[in-house]
Amino acid sequence: MSAGQWIQSICLMSFALLLFSPASRAQQRELNLMPMPASAQMGSGSLRIDSSFTVSLTGHSEPRLDRAVQRFKRQLSRQTAVPLPLKDAPKPTLLIQTDHASKEIQELGEGESYILEVTAEGAKLTAPTPLGTMHGLQTFLQLVSVSPDGFAVPAVAIRDKPRFPWRGLMIDCSRHFIPLDVIKRNLDGLEAVKMNVFHWHLSDNQGFRVESKKFPKLHAMGSDGLYYSQEEIREVIAYARDRGIRVVPEFDMPGHTTAWFVGYPELASGPGPYEIERHWGVFDPAMDPINEKTYKFLEGFVEEMAHLFPDHYFHIGGDEVNGKEWDANPKIQEYKKAHGLKSNEELQGYFSQRVQKIVTKHGKAVIGWDEVFVPGVPKDIVIQSWRGQGSLAQAATQGYRGMLSNGYYLDLGWSAARHYASDPTSGPAANLTPEQQQLILGGESCMWVEYANAENIDSRIWPRNAAIAERLWSPKEVTDVASMYARLDTMGAQLEWLGLTHRIYYRQMLQRIAGPASSPEDLDALRTLTDVVEPVKDYTREALAPAEPTSYTPMNRVVDAVPLESDSARRFGDLVDKFLAAGCHDPATEGRLRTQLAAWRDNDAKLQPVAQRSFLVREVAGTSRDLAALGSAGLAALDFLSKGGNVPSDWKASQLMEIEEIKKPKAQLLLIPAAAVQRLIETTAGGCTVPKS
Amino acid sequence: MSAGQWIQSICLMSFALLLFSPASRAQQRELNLMPMPASAQMGSGSLRIDSSFTVSLTGHSEPRLDRAVQRFKRQLSRQTAVPLPLKDAPKPTLLIQTDHASKEIQELGEGESYILEVTAEGAKLTAPTPLGTMHGLQTFLQLVSVSPDGFAVPAVAIRDKPRFPWRGLMIDCSRHFIPLDVIKRNLDGLEAVKMNVFHWHLSDNQGFRVESKKFPKLHAMGSDGLYYSQEEIREVIAYARDRGIRVVPEFDMPGHTTAWFVGYPELASGPGPYEIERHWGVFDPAMDPINEKTYKFLEGFVEEMAHLFPDHYFHIGGDEVNGKEWDANPKIQEYKKAHGLKSNEELQGYFSQRVQKIVTKHGKAVIGWDEVFVPGVPKDIVIQSWRGQGSLAQAATQGYRGMLSNGYYLDLGWSAARHYASDPTSGPAANLTPEQQQLILGGESCMWVEYANAENIDSRIWPRNAAIAERLWSPKEVTDVASMYARLDTMGAQLEWLGLTHRIYYRQMLQRIAGPASSPEDLDALRTLTDVVEPVKDYTREALAPAEPTSYTPMNRVVDAVPLESDSARRFGDLVDKFLAAGCHDPATEGRLRTQLAAWRDNDAKLQPVAQRSFLVREVAGTSRDLAALGSAGLAALDFLSKGGNVPSDWKASQLMEIEEIKKPKAQLLLIPAAAVQRLIETTAGGCTVPKS
Repeated sequence: MSAGQWIQSICLMSFALLLFSPASRAQQRELNLMPMPASAQMGSGSLRIDSSFTVSLTGHSEPRLDRAVQRFKRQLSRQTAVPLPLKDAPKPTLLIQTDHASKEIQELGEGESYILEVTAEGAKLTAPTPLGTMHGLQTFLQLVSVSPDGFAVPAVAIRDKPRFPWRGLMIDCSRHFIPLDVIKRNLDGLEAVKMNVFHWHLSDNQGFRVESKKFPKLHAMGSDGLYYSQEEIREVIAYARDRGIRVVPEFDMPGHTTAWFVGYPELASGPGPYEIERHWGVFDPAMDPINEKTYKFLEGFVEEMAHLFPDHYFHIGGDEVNGKEWDANPKIQEYKKAHGLKSNEELQGYFSQRVQKIVTKHGKAVIGWDEVFVPGVPKDIVIQSWRGQGSLAQAATQGYRGMLSNGYYLDLGWSAARHYASDPTSGPAANLTPEQQQLILGGESCMWVEYANAENIDSRIWPRNAAIAERLWSPKEVTDVASMYARLDTMGAQLEWLGLTHRIYYRQMLQRIAGPASSPEDLDALRTLTDVVEPVKDYTREALAPAEPTSYTPMNRVVDAVPLESDSARRFGDLVDKFLAAGCHDPATEGRLRTQLAAWRDNDAKLQPVAQRSFLVREVAGTSRDLAALGSAGLAALDFLSKGGNVPSDWKASQLMEIEEIKKPKAQLLLIPAAAVQRLIETTAGGCTVPKS
Repeated sequence: MSAGQWIQSICLMSFALLLFSPASRAQQRELNLMPMPASAQMGSGSLRIDSSFTVSLTGHSEPRLDRAVQRFKRQLSRQTAVPLPLKDAPKPTLLIQTDHASKEIQELGEGESYILEVTAEGAKLTAPTPLGTMHGLQTFLQLVSVSPDGFAVPAVAIRDKPRFPWRGLMIDCSRHFIPLDVIKRNLDGLEAVKMNVFHWHLSDNQGFRVESKKFPKLHAMGSDGLYYSQEEIREVIAYARDRGIRVVPEFDMPGHTTAWFVGYPELASGPGPYEIERHWGVFDPAMDPINEKTYKFLEGFVEEMAHLFPDHYFHIGGDEVNGKEWDANPKIQEYKKAHGLKSNEELQGYFSQRVQKIVTKHGKAVIGWDEVFVPGVPKDIVIQSWRGQGSLAQAATQGYRGMLSNGYYLDLGWSAARHYASDPTSGPAANLTPEQQQLILGGESCMWVEYANAENIDSRIWPRNAAIAERLWSPKEVTDVASMYARLDTMGAQLEWLGLTHRIYYRQMLQRIAGPASSPEDLDALRTLTDVVEPVKDYTREALAPAEPTSYTPMNRVVDAVPLESDSARRFGDLVDKFLAAGCHDPATEGRLRTQLAAWRDNDAKLQPVAQRSFLVREVAGTSRDLAALGSAGLAALDFLSKGGNVPSDWKASQLMEIEEIKKPKAQLLLIPAAAVQRLIETTAGGCTVPKS
């Protein structure tokens, strides 16, 4: 284009930027960004990425920015396999301008905005602080794509800033220990999706995971040797700071504390002795809230940890105290009577206030689960709500700040779409005044690890966490689910370049399940089945097998291997809906459905021999038969529907009964396409309308 | 089984062991071990692997053995996902008896034998030295498989020892730098296949990769900052020793030395100045063999490196001196005349002898490529032959030791079967006396990295290197290619648990090639094509594009992504041969062939839209059309043959011409199934005999 046209297009762009409008749906699809920026305007042409690509930093300088650029270049090279020059050029391809430093210890609510302008000639990234710069670099990396002429970034002008200041991920490292390298690559993932808080759940009944120099029996007796040294903790904090991420430690108390009591039984309300808990669930042990020694201990402990973790917020947990140890302790009963404490909730309130004072004394603000919100708590507390927007609204009306985790529990196996629909300011929070809504700081996804370990945890977090990240970063109006899924697929591929194993672990686990001597055909047969099952949802695993598993249980079953959301099943469901919406007259879609259904029908014969050889495959042999039945039923339904006939009612009734059976969990798995095949069967012809069921 | 039967079976086993016979073919298939042990006798039943599995060490003890057991347990847990007890039990599942220590610095020819006996009740591993113990542990890990009842090891009695004492892998870390973690995981791979030498090619024209404290300009100016610190070198040596692997450093001289001259041009025979070489090939720069300063420098350098690398052997390279710098240097010409050196070979012989003296002075023995074998070299030299068994035989008849690399160049893209057929004592070496054959120490596979880097190198080494490892370890009679491939497939799966990326890199590179926003169908279409191509063989890449690539060239093309041997194409070829051998009357095989051929025929329509979007896919668009043509031609041939008719001669002629075109390299790739389809076309009916072509 000519220089004149170029100036004109720049002006048009700037005009568009002034409007600061959320990207249109078409642009969302085109841009392939996640989270979607606050505002984006496509230009024309694209910037070529080749081995002449250079970067320069201007304005504010600090080593963290240099490292961010090094990391950016390494990542760009990884995505493209293009080696980049070792030295920078005088006229860089990407010019970065950072105005000033951010806070020495990253604070809640610091500016994170940036402007990224890409033309065919070059790119410019401008940000008030390094936090925005780092976000902008991630956006740039996501824009890189393969094109007919090479790797390129489309011309675009982006003005971006987050909707909420608190966008976090919690990882439970107690129930299964999560090694340092896994934590680090997940921090890389958080940076990629612009989340800025890593909430580190460091102690629970099943393990105390931090080295304490003051109270060494905490980690020495409470962790089976699986804990983070203080040096490692500092390493993670520095690693996170380099990525614009705060690290908020959680020491859950007074419940969830069995692992503390192995070394220090005197802290407990029961007689002890205690052992590291090996089961999952809510347990009785709780700290003794009436013993001054408890507070003396916590005084020393909080002091040590407050020095180790620089963040202003200190999470004291506070959830799920069942009160049984308190009820069984006569002294505690006596104390309650003597001090007019009418319930264990009030007793916990007393404990919380004592701990909050300790935390405050060390210059920190308390964050805790819903339970810590009791009358009279200081205003600088932050409530993390596992209960929902109602709790947040209630707190906000009293002037308290909070953030949402209800709806963001990654371990419950919800679909990305369901997480995506959870908005911190919706439901009961929608009626708050704008000032009150300001008290809702954002949210945190939560990864509890009863059923996750180093091998499969990435797959439990990613890519779904990117949808939650978008909910918390992008404008509230960005809600198109189809666009979200399209971009989530791309993001899933992008995240692999960070070393996250959310995709590759799966094939390796299937190989273990089928055995190393399996043929490619064996593995294909297994995968055809496992691609369309999901683990049972919510807390059904516990309900189905209350005594099992424990932290000793091998996690090598199909239920441990499959992703929590089946992409194949989702795509099949979308196809069925498309076919039905077309009044069952869509030969291309029908063809694809038939191919898929026939593959399922025929897969069982291939899978059963593998099941004969491996106990781990045998566990899903019944599910394989169910899938074959689904295939046959779906094909039969298509035969009726595509001929324009009605699905005969007696056949329909018997098939629906079979589907109901198929929908029941087997081997802790759900066969997801059952619902879509059910829709086919339920459909009557003559307009091909689906009856309401 | 009863106790009586048990004793009887033990006795039978012991009797069988006395015979020390190579495992029968049936046992080879059953055992799934690689390399095949010297002797194995199947028992009955199997040993269950569950969370009660424990290990005990008796006899000789040293920390290395404890670490080996820890590593073994970690690996066992990884393969099975079964958590193992933290503490050992009084009655262990696996009892290990090691008789005595091995040498403090591992020596060539140390005992490596072991005996492993597994019954349903437990296992016992016995070895004279830790080297044997470590080999036995690897055998045990390979025996673990999934069964109908859980993970298990079959009852077996194995007596094992290597055929050759020198079984190595050379990795060139100069042409592309290979990071430390990649080196380490490849050492894990070597341990798994019982190779005991890591030959580290540390300097070449394209990079000097070791920190030298005496001559810091070597690494500072000769490596682009990509080198191993001495601390890292020591780390690798300790890591290798822990796995029974010697580390032999190579500093190639007097040629292949451009990178030395960047910092120290005074060492060179030319006027300089020198820059790090960015191209591939044989280059002119060579050390100045007539300057005493060269030897003074090497004196200091060898001294430093001889201390850094404890192994007795010190590799001085010696290959591919083209003599051009020597010819162009009048002083060198003068010197040759004055000293009666008639050729550059004689001049190099003089240089080699000087360097050998330096190496010997520091207590080391020299190893070098064929070229160092000149009259009068000391007897303790070892010749590494890139030329072949002829060189080895020639040396052996004069009492010199050697080992084979000809036939084991992994980067040339040969099939595993072809490497497997290369035997160090075959061909000209077959006629040596038994005493002379003893001088042939074994061999080394070589991984030159013009076309390999950190991303794809594992796939260039594995799993094919396991076939070479078997050639060097197992009895000479173990030569069944079908058994080798079956076990190689299993080994390929097993090696993944070590963190080797020889399988997972492929899907990620295809994702990059197709773009992150590609659909699963796009990727399937791409993979259908790339699964049956291989990079051109031997040195054809240079021949096809002499000026390119350089060390700056992005390695992101299909030719960089595909494995060097196509499993799918091999399986297809086997199917064709099976069909032809059955006189074209084998409906099941024919059905499988038709399915495959039709898939190829139909794939092009799916691939071309992807090629429109990505320049990296577009490069193989023509190959995709060729594959479609192969599919159609193969189907047509089957139509003729299965009807018992002759393939019409005019059709045949035109098809064979087309196949010849298809066989030509495109995008530096070969379409492998062309040969098998050609066999179908060439086949005339009436007995379905294949004419000799």
